[in-house]
Amino acid sequence: MPFTTQRKVRFQHCDPAGIVFYPRYYEMLNSVVEDYFAEVVGHDFNRLHVTSRTGVPTARIETDFHAPSRLGETLDFELTIRDVGRTSLAIRTAVHCGGEPRLTCDATLVFVDLDSGRPLPWPEAMRCHFAIES
Amino acid sequence: MPFTTQRKVRFQHCDPAGIVFYPRYYEMLNSVVEDYFAEVVGHDFNRLHVTSRTGVPTARIETDFHAPSRLGETLDFELTIRDVGRTSLAIRTAVHCGGEPRLTCDATLVFVDLDSGRPLPWPEAMRCHFAIES
Amino acid sequence: MPFTTQRKVRFQHCDPAGIVFYPRYYEMLNSVVEDYFAEVVGHDFNRLHVTSRTGVPTARIETDFHAPSRLGETLDFELTIRDVGRTSLAIRTAVHCGGEPRLTCDATLVFVDLDSGRPLPWPEAMRCHFAIES
Amino acid sequence: MPFTTQRKVRFQHCDPAGIVFYPRYYEMLNSVVEDYFAEVVGHDFNRLHVTSRTGVPTARIETDFHAPSRLGETLDFELTIRDVGRTSLAIRTAVHCGGEPRLTCDATLVFVDLDSGRPLPWPEAMRCHFAIES
Repeated sequence: MPFTTQRKVRFQHCDPAGIVFYPRYYEMLNSVVEDYFAEVVGHDFNRLHVTSRTGVPTARIETDFHAPSRLGETLDFELTIRDVGRTSLAIRTAVHCGGEPRLTCDATLVFVDLDSGRPLPWPEAMRCHFAIES
Repeated sequence: MPFTTQRKVRFQHCDPAGIVFYPRYYEMLNSVVEDYFAEVVGHDFNRLHVTSRTGVPTARIETDFHAPSRLGETLDFELTIRDVGRTSLAIRTAVHCGGEPRLTCDATLVFVDLDSGRPLPWPEAMRCHFAIES
Repeated sequence: MPFTTQRKVRFQHCDPAGIVFYPRYYEMLNSVVEDYFAEVVGHDFNRLHVTSRTGVPTARIETDFHAPSRLGETLDFELTIRDVGRTSLAIRTAVHCGGEPRLTCDATLVFVDLDSGRPLPWPEAMRCHFAIES
Repeated sequence: MPFTTQRKVRFQHCDPAGIVFYPRYYEMLNSVVEDYFAEVVGHDFNRLHVTSRTGVPTARIETDFHAPSRLGETLDFELTIRDVGRTSLAIRTAVHCGGEPRLTCDATLVFVDLDSGRPLPWPEAMRCHFAIES
């Protein structure tokens, strides 16, 4: 089952053309990954970054923007796991508004040690939560 | 010849891991496109958006992050035109620091009428500045 | 009764020192004003800005930061109306975390016509919702 | 002599009303403080935060917004030191565009140990650069 959540398009997300400025989508997308790790994987970003000194930087990201989003709209985010590597995770996030596709984003995250910058194998306690949707 | 410019990694770009938070790269990348339009194409974003009620939203974007960037570093941006369509523009921006690759971003922009949201053919006055690098 | 809402401290809000970068508080504070206008005053920011071509820019703002906020914390926002002028509104927003004060912000908003930039008297339909707390 | 620098109003700073969204001014103001510390005080923010594990969080800030700024404008920032305390620094930043006042911001920064969160006395090497303008 995909992980779903919502975000409201706020004034701070919109540009002089009155639509979401695309870098702001990445703040929303990152916050959805944050929620996924906290609610599904059971590791919030504070524990991940501050306590464990690990991180999940984005190695690759690819986004298709299908239609603009406007101030006040509520966006539906649906995150699915596409692939789990030894140290990486491929996720797809599809964003809709009232059923209309707005953007689709494929990202590859890597689990790293913040101090060395080196990739780490996913701990079993995290890996067991990465359920691949087909 | 590619369009080149620099950006400094500032406090506002960095996350708790001490490296650039990737959505901030897109603010930098967008500002480089802004400079390219103002300095090379001869249409600044104010004229484009406010006076002409046109825009250049991003339809597709694909980024590889090669290595993290840190507070205080100066990044070199190199923008090249990859393809010019009737209403679109494919650009590549390579970002380095001291010769080390940090990220490569391929984006497709579309020229649109802000009021209708419809794609517009590039005006000849703009098109003649899009020199394709091979 | 004050207007209350919550915001979670997310990765995007935090700086290399691991605490909220203060400009991000203003994005949160602005989003709380947005919610207040939508939920209490009955005018969402889309209707205000796009439909009516009016706005509520900030003329003055004064903030005391009492203690830093950290990744993953949930902040309680409490907005009270301090004074209602013919064209202005003085609001105070107090932010706490688990009862501990984090910041107090006094702001003066002005109701303006976006096209002329001129202040406008508050419409009676909005004014009647501005209940002053004492 | 005040410390002066410039910032261009970019697309990323502007809101659906076509003017600078006020939280973005604080990113600019912070970057001016960053330049002041690097160029005048001789301590860049990387050295300050990462190497020395110190920081200069804002304890109090007070801003008057005199007139809106628009996409494409170049803003002149003028930073003056108003007062130097044992552990604090009171600065004023006046922002103009073509001589027209846009905003005036008074801020109090505190020098802190990032690990304990405790205020620290300014090192003499830094303090000697804080020249008070009268």
